[in-house]
Amino acid sequence: MHWRDFFIPTSKETPKDATAPSHVLMLRAGLIRQAAAGVYSYLPLGYRVLRKVEAIVRAEMNRAGAIELHLPVLMPISWWEQTGRTEAMGDTLLRLGGPQGDWRSQTVLGPTHEEAITEIARAYLNSYKQLPITLYQIQVKFRGEARPKSGVLRTREFLMKDAYSFHDSIESLDRTYQKMYDAYCRIFSRCGLPYMAVEAESGPIGGDASHEFMVLTDAGEDNVALTDDGSYAANVERATAAAPTPAAEVALEAVQEVHTPNAGRIEDVCPVLGVSPQMLIKTLIYSAAVRDNKDGPERLVRVVALVRGDHDINEHKLTKVTGLMLELAEPRTIEELTGAAVGFAGPQGLVQRLGAADRLIVDREVAVLRNAASGANKTDYHVTGVNPGRDFPLEGERVVVADIRNVVEGDPSPSDGAPVHLRTAIEVGHVFKLGTKYSTAMSATYLDQEGRAQPLIMGCYGIGLNRITAAVIESHHDDNGIIWPMSIAPFHVLVMALDPRDEQVMQTAKELHDRLEASGLDVLFDDRDERAGFKFKDADLIGVPLRIVVGKKSLANGTVEVSHRRDQKKEPFEPAAAAKHVVKRVSAELAELENV
Amino acid sequence: MHWRDFFIPTSKETPKDATAPSHVLMLRAGLIRQAAAGVYSYLPLGYRVLRKVEAIVRAEMNRAGAIELHLPVLMPISWWEQTGRTEAMGDTLLRLGGPQGDWRSQTVLGPTHEEAITEIARAYLNSYKQLPITLYQIQVKFRGEARPKSGVLRTREFLMKDAYSFHDSIESLDRTYQKMYDAYCRIFSRCGLPYMAVEAESGPIGGDASHEFMVLTDAGEDNVALTDDGSYAANVERATAAAPTPAAEVALEAVQEVHTPNAGRIEDVCPVLGVSPQMLIKTLIYSAAVRDNKDGPERLVRVVALVRGDHDINEHKLTKVTGLMLELAEPRTIEELTGAAVGFAGPQGLVQRLGAADRLIVDREVAVLRNAASGANKTDYHVTGVNPGRDFPLEGERVVVADIRNVVEGDPSPSDGAPVHLRTAIEVGHVFKLGTKYSTAMSATYLDQEGRAQPLIMGCYGIGLNRITAAVIESHHDDNGIIWPMSIAPFHVLVMALDPRDEQVMQTAKELHDRLEASGLDVLFDDRDERAGFKFKDADLIGVPLRIVVGKKSLANGTVEVSHRRDQKKEPFEPAAAAKHVVKRVSAELAELENV
Repeated sequence: MHWRDFFIPTSKETPKDATAPSHVLMLRAGLIRQAAAGVYSYLPLGYRVLRKVEAIVRAEMNRAGAIELHLPVLMPISWWEQTGRTEAMGDTLLRLGGPQGDWRSQTVLGPTHEEAITEIARAYLNSYKQLPITLYQIQVKFRGEARPKSGVLRTREFLMKDAYSFHDSIESLDRTYQKMYDAYCRIFSRCGLPYMAVEAESGPIGGDASHEFMVLTDAGEDNVALTDDGSYAANVERATAAAPTPAAEVALEAVQEVHTPNAGRIEDVCPVLGVSPQMLIKTLIYSAAVRDNKDGPERLVRVVALVRGDHDINEHKLTKVTGLMLELAEPRTIEELTGAAVGFAGPQGLVQRLGAADRLIVDREVAVLRNAASGANKTDYHVTGVNPGRDFPLEGERVVVADIRNVVEGDPSPSDGAPVHLRTAIEVGHVFKLGTKYSTAMSATYLDQEGRAQPLIMGCYGIGLNRITAAVIESHHDDNGIIWPMSIAPFHVLVMALDPRDEQVMQTAKELHDRLEASGLDVLFDDRDERAGFKFKDADLIGVPLRIVVGKKSLANGTVEVSHRRDQKKEPFEPAAAAKHVVKRVSAELAELENV
Repeated sequence: MHWRDFFIPTSKETPKDATAPSHVLMLRAGLIRQAAAGVYSYLPLGYRVLRKVEAIVRAEMNRAGAIELHLPVLMPISWWEQTGRTEAMGDTLLRLGGPQGDWRSQTVLGPTHEEAITEIARAYLNSYKQLPITLYQIQVKFRGEARPKSGVLRTREFLMKDAYSFHDSIESLDRTYQKMYDAYCRIFSRCGLPYMAVEAESGPIGGDASHEFMVLTDAGEDNVALTDDGSYAANVERATAAAPTPAAEVALEAVQEVHTPNAGRIEDVCPVLGVSPQMLIKTLIYSAAVRDNKDGPERLVRVVALVRGDHDINEHKLTKVTGLMLELAEPRTIEELTGAAVGFAGPQGLVQRLGAADRLIVDREVAVLRNAASGANKTDYHVTGVNPGRDFPLEGERVVVADIRNVVEGDPSPSDGAPVHLRTAIEVGHVFKLGTKYSTAMSATYLDQEGRAQPLIMGCYGIGLNRITAAVIESHHDDNGIIWPMSIAPFHVLVMALDPRDEQVMQTAKELHDRLEASGLDVLFDDRDERAGFKFKDADLIGVPLRIVVGKKSLANGTVEVSHRRDQKKEPFEPAAAAKHVVKRVSAELAELENV
């Protein structure tokens, strides 16, 4: 392929608003062009990469026994109403615009396809004899991201591989889950990605267990906690520390009120009380609007959550413990409950004021504090000598002690106590054990061996193809541009005619190009009549792994120069030997990526 | 691939509402499932076919030198406002639903991508040195079809290959147009489609010249006019007959008024007047609202169109002649102009009542009538003895004589006078010479050799991949099911174990399956424990071209039976010979399709 025929609009300018290296380099190397916020065109070079990623994903899904189909983008909103996700997804779920009652107002754009596949399963998967089965598609998704960012990392339109498995037992689900997990490992390895699998929350997809596949990079938007020894890795949403050591046996002080005017914030009150944030109990008050039945009246449930002053609450964990869709309570609610201004709440005495449906959730680390401080439930006052169990209950109907905080740098891991580190990462894949959430909601049942109707047990497995592309660049680039792994490089080798006006140079370069293409390699041929420096800069930017430079000087010695984008070390070869060397090297690198 | 692993939900039921054979068979063979009106899922078998069609399209586009990229579905409505197509497309252009001013209300779903590609050309194609170039994508499109029908033939979500070429001269456009035309011929041939290229109107895409690729079938929604000898073929929207023979030299009668009470319709008046519809002049009055400049006031332009009583007017042609967006005039407008009730308009005397901007368009066949009849512009009266040129003008500022009628069965063709026949057809592809319509509207210019900015000259080339799939079924099926051409068959060969409980049968069948798969064939293996009749019905329905049946009886003689879905003739082979025969036959059929 001649460079000039292929449409590679490279640019020297660093685009404004782009900070993530993958975003900058995808724009500069002419891989993508922005059409609107969070919407990109893939230009030819970028699309070649995406297609190679797609081919790897497809090959590994097929190898794992999954069957490909293709669900539509447009679907009736009624499916989403059946699973209750029109609300759970909120503005993420995009709809067509049209007058009320018109077909368009009843149509959504798929942000994911659990409903669509469950509708198909409901129609056709009626017997245990058809199970297990894993169906997948590679299909564009649409999400109403409020804040698209970082190029193709967070967009409103993106390409996903999503697979769904159906089972008649948990054991069968577990087997397929493991198969998909293994397939994902192979996919990311083949793409050259330094990935890790971490324990994850399942979020609005729902379900029982899940893992995320993460690539560590500063451009990531996810936070993971991991140990140096690899013994533990989890999304911070889910990560937990080792259980705290039991409370020390110390003399319990009496509760004592301290005047702390205007010191409602931790950083203000600690110096006044002379305690460290670790010894302060942070009291957060949440509320949720609940109905006892679908048409019943709404009432407010209040949840008091306690964490240490140096810890942040983890709302995912709090939601899981309470089973409620919580929001931080309004100031009025807080003042009513505590009898004090916001900032002066404390656990002592508060439980007595809670209603029958209200709850007190105590973080494990708070439960082992002794002689701690907290708000006094009195404006401008705190108390010291607060002791869990004595001054507020740790058991009882409305009380739960649980892990409800975010892990912090240095926390002991639950695996072996090694300290965890916090890193940012890109999520490139996610596998879920869904259970029967969707099949129950949509009445997708099969007949078991005894002829009884049972809800299908489901798993689902997603990979973001655009994110893989960006994550590969995040992990494989230098100051001059991209360094593609051989498996997804848009071209395996770049043949550069340094002096295109020299007949012998052009002939040698052309022969090399033709010969390598005939060997089945993807070859890019730069015979543009431009300065050598300009062409080298372009070559470094677009990151084709192998390079053969045909120049007048070296050709006078009967050689061409072969180098690798990774190390740029130049090696002279006779042209025929160069071709052989390159073919061998491409195979070797592909094999290496496949055999991880 | 084992049948039971692959998810092929066949059905004996003929689905209600499905009439086109392709629609019925795609549902019954488990290729597709409807998600909503005009929206389908492709089940595994159907998706395999679609992917094979896609691979052929991609291979031929690449062979023709086109470069693949990928434009987004979502795009800003501002691009469409620049080309004026928000109005031209009307409800066909789907938008996202969202509050006014929100990003969603400014976002449309691409029904086609001229705007998107022109925006990219504007950004990057700046010099004649980069031209010509042809860019293409294979991408889902969305259209707000008011009446989706015939399964995947007319839908709201569908897969297209759309290519766009950019040029600095008409000659360059002509060359690429021919290349694309040739590529299309190869694509349809390879898919086994009995296609024909016909002259076509370019419709809302616009442009200077275009051809449609049609497949004749009763399920089609397009009408084409063609001669038996193949000398002429055109979409009826555009088709023209040979010019009429000049008027006979006959004595001109005087105009005479005839009382024709309540006979405003042709079928009513002809018996009263004693003339055939061929001798009656049908007078149609159209109007268009026009503005002299963008913000000027709207005024009504009236167009009087004359065709013979036995002919239908062709509004595409009328639009082309007048350059106006015409609608049939309101009764009030007609009555004002003619001074008579609707149904009694005639050309004589009418031209004098037309305003300066109004027009009289006379069909060529009307111009050569002698002593014809027409309405009298007087309620309940007609006139006879009407003579064009004498009783109404055939030239002058406001008068045009042109071909403005639909061709009818038996019309002499403009090529060699052979009679044309009218047939229904499916449009599977369309190539257009766009000219500078989009580049001018969106200011997409390049610098020519003299450094002057010129609008890019464009072509565009579309293929409907779902339609190819359906059109192939329309042309390749019998009462029992589909008969796939080898090139796009979901599997090349079906190995059927007739007695799966017999160990030798299963072993032989399994070995054949494995051996054929190892030869690179797509093999489906039906070892289901079902009645032979049931399995044969399924096999006929899904239409895999080659079949090897392994049964206890024939295996006792050391043979298996090979047959072809097309003729069902069974031939006995020893198993190893059967495998060889099948591999050879598959290659031969693929080669035959490729070498048309």
